[in-house]
Amino acid sequence: MQLLEERIRAEGRIREGDILKVDRFLNHQMDVELFDAMGREWARLFEGCGVNKILTIEASGIGIACVAAFSFHCPVVFAKKSRSKNLDSEVYRTEVVSYTHGNHSDVMVSRDALGPEDRVLLIDDFLANGAALCGLLDICAQAGATVVGAGIAIEKAYQPGGRIVRERGVRVESLARIASMSPEGGIVFC
Amino acid sequence: MQLLEERIRAEGRIREGDILKVDRFLNHQMDVELFDAMGREWARLFEGCGVNKILTIEASGIGIACVAAFSFHCPVVFAKKSRSKNLDSEVYRTEVVSYTHGNHSDVMVSRDALGPEDRVLLIDDFLANGAALCGLLDICAQAGATVVGAGIAIEKAYQPGGRIVRERGVRVESLARIASMSPEGGIVFC
Repeated sequence: MQLLEERIRAEGRIREGDILKVDRFLNHQMDVELFDAMGREWARLFEGCGVNKILTIEASGIGIACVAAFSFHCPVVFAKKSRSKNLDSEVYRTEVVSYTHGNHSDVMVSRDALGPEDRVLLIDDFLANGAALCGLLDICAQAGATVVGAGIAIEKAYQPGGRIVRERGVRVESLARIASMSPEGGIVFC
Repeated sequence: MQLLEERIRAEGRIREGDILKVDRFLNHQMDVELFDAMGREWARLFEGCGVNKILTIEASGIGIACVAAFSFHCPVVFAKKSRSKNLDSEVYRTEVVSYTHGNHSDVMVSRDALGPEDRVLLIDDFLANGAALCGLLDICAQAGATVVGAGIAIEKAYQPGGRIVRERGVRVESLARIASMSPEGGIVFC
């Protein structure tokens, strides 16, 4: 998606440890007009797939998912990363390792919020090692929900997550796919 | 706001420990059409105030803030609750005590994302003790930003947060204000 690639080129910054900072428009300050364009693109790509729920994971996925939901006319559910008193004991639960934050998280979705009647689009800001996405797939499997596919903003295509998830039979639509990235060479898109 | 009050009456559930669970439409599963109506209402209330940025705090505020931003035509910034490798060392920082989760969080906003040129609307799902909102006010003060006001979905008006924040001179517009709440008496709105 040209609009997103241009934005990454203009405002993304590469940091040590294979970090792409896009916090000026994607995951700290958030450009909701850009999110709307991304949502429309996913709606075009997944047209006719009968998506009736969007599932994401806190925190960076929530804004993108909520804006995208307007193009799908469906509710959003976000998986919560830590045990909260506000969540029922009746939950689907899985574990996600965050490479960015260097920790494990228990991730939960209320059983009320997801079930066999749901045709789910997973949405997240990044796909790299695939840990978050595999956690969401696990939760959908527990719920008996159908996963229609995954809408990703930025995929680091040189990392294994995209391959792992696609080999599980999941359709992944990443709006910007990075082939390589370095402070010297800059960002090369696929 | 009648639409939100009706929804709370229909789907909110009161739990021990003064917990109002609204996770079927507000802060776990999220009804973005409702969020859009809320955003329009805040835009009406704060019309002419020159809001050019919405500030919220992860995680439950993000979805509401991103959808509301459409009615303000401005970006959203969410304060991050824990140190992330993805955030610059150059941050505004404050501490927030969460009564819901029973812990302290270090809350941060990048200096890039907020400054004296900003006229900020704070948005959050709940106002009870006011800890989160006071943290956001502190960050705005550090940034030299002007706080236009706060848009709250649900205010527990029998708790001190609303009074504390209003006494600091901040205009608070809560779309549903709860006067009292108990498993026996149900929910009484102001």
